[in-house]
Amino acid sequence: MTVPGGHVSSADVTRYRVRPTPGARRGDTGERTTRVGPQDIIHMRRAIGLAARGHGGTSPNPVVGCVVLDASGQVAGEGFHAYAGGPHAEVVALREAGERARGGTAYVTLEPCDHTGRTGPCSGALISAGVARVVVAVTDPNPLAAGGVDRLRRSGVEVETGVLAEEAERVNAAWLTFIRRRRPFVTWKFAATLDGRSAAADGTSKWITSPEARADVHRLRAEGDAVIAGIGTVIADDPQLTARVPGDAARRPLRVVVDSAARTPASARVLAGEEPALVAVADDADVPAHLGHAVRLPRAPGGIDLHALMAELHGRQIVSALLEGGPTLAGSFLREGLVDRVVGYIAPALLGTGPAALGPAGVTTIGEILRLEFEEVTPIGPDLRLVLRPAPPKES
Amino acid sequence: MTVPGGHVSSADVTRYRVRPTPGARRGDTGERTTRVGPQDIIHMRRAIGLAARGHGGTSPNPVVGCVVLDASGQVAGEGFHAYAGGPHAEVVALREAGERARGGTAYVTLEPCDHTGRTGPCSGALISAGVARVVVAVTDPNPLAAGGVDRLRRSGVEVETGVLAEEAERVNAAWLTFIRRRRPFVTWKFAATLDGRSAAADGTSKWITSPEARADVHRLRAEGDAVIAGIGTVIADDPQLTARVPGDAARRPLRVVVDSAARTPASARVLAGEEPALVAVADDADVPAHLGHAVRLPRAPGGIDLHALMAELHGRQIVSALLEGGPTLAGSFLREGLVDRVVGYIAPALLGTGPAALGPAGVTTIGEILRLEFEEVTPIGPDLRLVLRPAPPKES
Ligand SMILES: NC(=O)c1ccc[n+]([C@@H]2O[C@H](COP(=O)([O-])OP(=O)(O)OC[C@H]3O[C@@H](n4cnc5c(N)ncnc54)[C@H](OP(=O)(O)O)[C@@H]3O)[C@@H](O)[C@H]2O)c1
Ligand SMILES: NC(=O)c1ccc[n+]([C@@H]2O[C@H](COP(=O)([O-])OP(=O)(O)OC[C@H]3O[C@@H](n4cnc5c(N)ncnc54)[C@H](OP(=O)(O)O)[C@@H]3O)[C@@H](O)[C@H]2O)c1
Repeated sequence: MTVPGGHVSSADVTRYRVRPTPGARRGDTGERTTRVGPQDIIHMRRAIGLAARGHGGTSPNPVVGCVVLDASGQVAGEGFHAYAGGPHAEVVALREAGERARGGTAYVTLEPCDHTGRTGPCSGALISAGVARVVVAVTDPNPLAAGGVDRLRRSGVEVETGVLAEEAERVNAAWLTFIRRRRPFVTWKFAATLDGRSAAADGTSKWITSPEARADVHRLRAEGDAVIAGIGTVIADDPQLTARVPGDAARRPLRVVVDSAARTPASARVLAGEEPALVAVADDADVPAHLGHAVRLPRAPGGIDLHALMAELHGRQIVSALLEGGPTLAGSFLREGLVDRVVGYIAPALLGTGPAALGPAGVTTIGEILRLEFEEVTPIGPDLRLVLRPAPPKES
Repeated sequence: MTVPGGHVSSADVTRYRVRPTPGARRGDTGERTTRVGPQDIIHMRRAIGLAARGHGGTSPNPVVGCVVLDASGQVAGEGFHAYAGGPHAEVVALREAGERARGGTAYVTLEPCDHTGRTGPCSGALISAGVARVVVAVTDPNPLAAGGVDRLRRSGVEVETGVLAEEAERVNAAWLTFIRRRRPFVTWKFAATLDGRSAAADGTSKWITSPEARADVHRLRAEGDAVIAGIGTVIADDPQLTARVPGDAARRPLRVVVDSAARTPASARVLAGEEPALVAVADDADVPAHLGHAVRLPRAPGGIDLHALMAELHGRQIVSALLEGGPTLAGSFLREGLVDRVVGYIAPALLGTGPAALGPAGVTTIGEILRLEFEEVTPIGPDLRLVLRPAPPKES
């Protein structure tokens, strides 16, 4: 229900001791925690805030933030990774710190990379700058980039890991899902009345939610790398699925239509524009000429095998995707455990009848209910915007 | 989304000028507003806060709060009406103020009564105490009690009306509905998943919401004078419909079952207890012996004529009622415009299929959608508690 604030509580200082990072390598948390103090929490939280500023720009890279202190503990440099191909957070912060980095401390939200990609390895940059201590939130699950912590230690740099790991995991949730699960991080968005309907009995639905909520959906689309819709929605609404965000014309998420029988009409608006939508059809589908570029994927109950679709998108470097429905496709994604976040726009209104916002999701009895947790609750115009994440599995 | 706070904004000072109280008599607002200042807002807001402390105790009387200042403007006395038959707010505040009330100002959330009921008329008490000025929020719509303002003026007391009337109307919404519409104020309560389902496909529903939310329902029941359920719910769940609130055993709302065909079984738990439920049956129903006390009401589409039921409850001094459903009955209440407040407990969970929280409510196309407004949004355990009111009719 809360967003990370700027204050430090004793719970923060100890949290990473109690609960090891889900993705952290074993032995990384625990024994060295006594050397971490409240100052470390403050600076790491700042670094996480910096990392968040990269959201929407860094794909397929992670978001990363970095704060560099001089030897006396004063902030000497700050940086974040702003766009793929641009300088890494550590490099930006070290550049600002200059000579003041020598003997200082660097806070990095993600383990500094150790490979020479488009930019040099950040581990090397920290060593050359003479940084004496590096505090890391999340160790890198990417085998290509990991190894930075080992290299720093071998060079005599003191390294702490797992500091504010949970918050840092959250800011990088999309990228961590992409790396660990080899599929995009999927946000399911829906709009509905208080009683869960997304249209009236006669099918009319313009408009249930407010202009403010609808503008927010465009923002949500622009945040991700892809927007996914089912053929039912394409046939019913003929949506463009573009992100119309004032002043952000450059963001053009890949549009994806899930259409096992290749029914997308030639006139569909998703096929217009510079880059037509990726249409995913079943491998045995009869594909008309206007869908010549369609991608063939295996069948599964309900239509296309969604795990195969996710693998296809992973291969195309789609780190995060917005699932716009409709209810049938959303039900399948939920049933397959492929939804990482839910954003619901709830209008203060009742319909009583009409199409539901969600179709069958594989739940037949109460024990199988799909449990989530509220993460954010925000008024948006007259509506409510609810953000939820799947509840962590019960500890037993 | 906000609750009345303790601050004064310039909007407050002018609000009652811009928008006359819905229930105010004509000419009461407007011309005298220049004599009302920020201090009046502060004291009236305090009086409204005092009034709210009477909630759950004063039925069938209104809640009323009063603040008395001495001639120099210092608070000399405060009071609220705590229970039916107990002293009125003005009397409590005047008693505390004693001689200091002379030449002072009294703030009253509702027009002081002018009739000699169980207590003497408050208008007379204010006059005898020598109060020089009386500031009233809402004028009394009850013909039996009204006339207090006129009497005060005739005795030379300066009177302002309509100050913070909107807030004061809200605190007394139940009683004002009871008086103006000659029916109880109806709160429809429901519990559902994010997608508007109140049970899984196989009918299981224990439990969708948390223990915290379920405890809150008991508090909600205890607040009102009656709890209403449909025969569908009685047959499916055999609920007790009692308010089990720790330390508040005295509150025993009247239980009401809407059952046109007199199907309530002899073994139903609603018939047990000191006062068995009021069972409303159709006037042509075949009533079994165990329902000898049933009330016969006219039929209407869907079952019983709910307006007749409301009139029956009004006659029994039921000022506020909690409608617990189920979905069929709730749909009828909504269709008939008989819901004044909605309290929804939303669990962070999804079901996809299963019985809906709300049945047909007379809406077939989007233009007929039942519009509400969010009034409160509160986390309750892991769930959300949403309170809504019908949206005011669009001004055109
Ligand atoms: N409230 C909202 O936020 C919202 C958002 C979007 C849409 N909508 C509404 O939803 C309605 C359309 O929804 P819908 O449920 O009919 O269609 P849908 O969910 O958009 O598409 C469902 C179709 O996708 C295809 N599909 C392919 N693989 C699938 C799989 N693995 N699982 C499920 N489906 C798969 C199937 O057709 P094939 O077998 O032919 O492939 C299926 O019938 C429209 O009226 C639209 O306005 C509402
Ligand atoms: N989620 C929640 O908060 C919640 C709350 C309560 C109940 N429930 C669930 O709701 C289910 C029962 O709901 P339900 O819809 O079947 O039954 P219901 O709404 O409790 O009762 C409906 C019945 O009331 C009678 N009735 C009499 N006059 C009526 C009128 N004017 N309009 C409508 N109905 C009238 C009708 O039966 P006659 O024609 O025989 O009179 C009608 O079938 C249960 O499973 C229960 O668990 C859920």
